[in-house]
Amino acid sequence: MRITLDHVEDLARGAAVLGTGGGGDPYIGSLMLKQALQDGCQVDLLDVEAVRDEAFLMPFGLMGAPTVIVEKIPNGKEFIAALRSMERHLGKQAEGVMCAEIGGLNALLPLVLGARTGLPVVDGDGMGRAFPQLQMTTYHIFGISASPMVMADEYSSTVVIQSERSEEVERLGRNVVVAMGGSTSICLYPMSGADAKRSMVRGTLSLALGLGRTIREARRSSNDPFASMLSYLKTTPYYQHCRVLFEGKTVDLTRRTIGGFALGNVVIEGARGCASRRCTLTFQNEHLVAREGDRVLAIVPDLIAVLDSATAEPITTEGLKYGQRVTVVGISAAPIMRSPQALAVFGPQAFGLSDPFVPIEEISDPPAPRTE
Amino acid sequence: MRITLDHVEDLARGAAVLGTGGGGDPYIGSLMLKQALQDGCQVDLLDVEAVRDEAFLMPFGLMGAPTVIVEKIPNGKEFIAALRSMERHLGKQAEGVMCAEIGGLNALLPLVLGARTGLPVVDGDGMGRAFPQLQMTTYHIFGISASPMVMADEYSSTVVIQSERSEEVERLGRNVVVAMGGSTSICLYPMSGADAKRSMVRGTLSLALGLGRTIREARRSSNDPFASMLSYLKTTPYYQHCRVLFEGKTVDLTRRTIGGFALGNVVIEGARGCASRRCTLTFQNEHLVAREGDRVLAIVPDLIAVLDSATAEPITTEGLKYGQRVTVVGISAAPIMRSPQALAVFGPQAFGLSDPFVPIEEISDPPAPRTE
Repeated sequence: MRITLDHVEDLARGAAVLGTGGGGDPYIGSLMLKQALQDGCQVDLLDVEAVRDEAFLMPFGLMGAPTVIVEKIPNGKEFIAALRSMERHLGKQAEGVMCAEIGGLNALLPLVLGARTGLPVVDGDGMGRAFPQLQMTTYHIFGISASPMVMADEYSSTVVIQSERSEEVERLGRNVVVAMGGSTSICLYPMSGADAKRSMVRGTLSLALGLGRTIREARRSSNDPFASMLSYLKTTPYYQHCRVLFEGKTVDLTRRTIGGFALGNVVIEGARGCASRRCTLTFQNEHLVAREGDRVLAIVPDLIAVLDSATAEPITTEGLKYGQRVTVVGISAAPIMRSPQALAVFGPQAFGLSDPFVPIEEISDPPAPRTE
Repeated sequence: MRITLDHVEDLARGAAVLGTGGGGDPYIGSLMLKQALQDGCQVDLLDVEAVRDEAFLMPFGLMGAPTVIVEKIPNGKEFIAALRSMERHLGKQAEGVMCAEIGGLNALLPLVLGARTGLPVVDGDGMGRAFPQLQMTTYHIFGISASPMVMADEYSSTVVIQSERSEEVERLGRNVVVAMGGSTSICLYPMSGADAKRSMVRGTLSLALGLGRTIREARRSSNDPFASMLSYLKTTPYYQHCRVLFEGKTVDLTRRTIGGFALGNVVIEGARGCASRRCTLTFQNEHLVAREGDRVLAIVPDLIAVLDSATAEPITTEGLKYGQRVTVVGISAAPIMRSPQALAVFGPQAFGLSDPFVPIEEISDPPAPRTE
């Protein structure tokens, strides 16, 4: 399937929902992708089954705090510098680009790299959402090493990190991100087609595109975009358990950029005569847990998306402001993301939360004033 | 010339003098070199004129704060990991090892790497002393790039940094050093034999060996080791301008490890009825300037060595303590280190000092109570 200009905004919107607050604001990515397509570059989305087992594939993305990425805009040359540096380092040429995460900006930038280099992009990613640390992928869970990882900054300076432990790649890389100004382009988890087939969350680029299109079409036909969105998600292989968790107005926001991450909390006051109710979201780049009082409404790795209550336009954590009318939606993570091995890497405990993981479909009595 | 067990302690002592307070305490390096030689490994010192122009040479050393290096002891495997990683990255095999700096530990470790890999070590370095930052070399002054630089930690995790600007390699690398625990093995300035011939401070390993031997022999024959040392230095091509700057007891010491550097000041109270006089040394890993009141006695890149007043054993900045009886010796830097281009990179201003560089031989009226 060839990506066209018509796809870009739908894809950006869908990816921002799946970004669960993080992955970076897709706006700059959609501009870069439109520019590449307008310049005559072409990029094809490829089903992973169509990839040769021996093919050499390269996941690509930005690493850094979303709060920084909205201000420190990539120029695109560093994408190519990262790819070429990895190719030189490993002595072989990439045959395809992949997404490390489908969330937000990082869904779009691999398409920009694919368009600019003529490489196809494999449909899928390593999370089915966004996560703040780079070992938090299905690639890692299935034993594929994050290293060598190449990082490239806006001056095309590059850093190649090699370690047997993906957590160590994350730790060293995070320090380099800070030195590179808070965000940087990365190629990591270099893998074969066979590796991609066994480890990736498949088809998530197509899913993001369908999700974004559904919201847009609902708006145009004056349908409730939330109802349309939930109906669409229920048709997907991963995201079928979903519901509105809370609706209201943001009344408190704490957000700090520490150690290369955007950390914080947002408090939402209930709408429609429910002003005594409060929902609190805690985030590390992405939303980790939604609570009402002591009660968990949804928890990582399940997805927690914050959307504009009127338009269902997703709002990233760095886009949160006081006084926004928002609707919080909970969505089940892909089954591959909920295994005990997966939860050990990106379940609640990996973020220092003491709550156990409970799948959203097992959390009873949804307290949302607005039902599905 | 083959390095033998008899050479090790003399070399360590001489290198610690030339380290001008930094370069790391050579003790652990001398133990590692002795162990390698006792294990039957051999290492030859090679005059740079004997190296083929096309030979691929690899400077090697430790990067980090000397205060950390005395506690975080390398195991030697990371030396080889760094070398092999660079060879893989560049796709060619090293034919010789070089010193980045002759000061302290970093004079000995290239010999350990040479012994363990069977590679000869070229006689000379890129400073004729020690410096805290990696662009502060004659290699850099002569246009050889510090990158790619490979860094390897004790788990043999590696980081390869590539940048057009050596100052940027230093900046990114310094952040990685901190993430790697404050010290790390590095290969940098990969160069050809022809490059080495035009850029290195030649013969400094031999000079360190001769200097260390001179001090030891003076002690054994009950000669004044300071007089012997100064006489020896006057016979060398670089260090012929030298004198005792001050003699006394350390009465104040401030030392902090910040951003991967050991920063501080030491105050020395005059000896022998000169207790009202005070000499202050300011250091960043290495001593930068010696002052008596407002008067500069010696200033970087000239060498400032602090030695035990009884034995002329050099004391590194991390070995400074309250109450030591010390003699401060000033020594001229190699002429190649005093050019305007060189001073721009490692003259006083490069360290934030407002004093101009004045060659030690042009500073009149040495105020030392003990004369040459």
